[in-house]
Amino acid sequence: MVKHSTQLLDRTFSALADPTRRSLLEHLALGDCCVTDLARPHRMSLPAVSKHLKVLEGAGLVSRQKQGRVHSLKLEAAPMKQAQQWIEEYRRFWEASFDRLEDYLKQLQPNETKHEDPN
Amino acid sequence: MVKHSTQLLDRTFSALADPTRRSLLEHLALGDCCVTDLARPHRMSLPAVSKHLKVLEGAGLVSRQKQGRVHSLKLEAAPMKQAQQWIEEYRRFWEASFDRLEDYLKQLQPNETKHEDPN
Repeated sequence: MVKHSTQLLDRTFSALADPTRRSLLEHLALGDCCVTDLARPHRMSLPAVSKHLKVLEGAGLVSRQKQGRVHSLKLEAAPMKQAQQWIEEYRRFWEASFDRLEDYLKQLQPNETKHEDPN
Repeated sequence: MVKHSTQLLDRTFSALADPTRRSLLEHLALGDCCVTDLARPHRMSLPAVSKHLKVLEGAGLVSRQKQGRVHSLKLEAAPMKQAQQWIEEYRRFWEASFDRLEDYLKQLQPNETKHEDPN
């Protein structure tokens, strides 16, 4: 398996382990926006949204740009790609072991046929 | 986006947010094994491994079969597939917004050409 940054994966998976944070990321996938716009559909207070955004920023999943008093939030791809890669490699690795089992069972079949009673 | 089980995703991502648990899953991807076999390469005590396994079992990522005193552990695919699906859909959604931006910029280009000075 490819070596991933352990801490980056820890922080990414931890950030994704909350429905509000996943929802904020889905919202930001539509385009950059400010904290107030993010808070509105979630019916959350600004401090509550800010708390979740801090976790997402800590994981590097979201970056913040300050334009005067307005803070614009933007998705960052890299950490999510690492997380996706980990699951993907793990899946391939795992499915490969199923394939090996399947191959093994196929190899067994002809021998089993020989033992079958012709009647 | 497809509706996923929120609690299942919470538990899966939370379980994946620890390097030891990810390592245990990678180990189990090689094949079923017992707690003692899992503990050995991690140089961990049996209670420490059991604690992590409980989290993985709670997330449905690992199941346990008891054969007398030996507990055999097995990977379970469903929760990981859900997690992978969430990231995958999110990525498509996000990349689609980049594509839309690219299309928009391409649409702008011919108009910009018209304004170019022929000299």
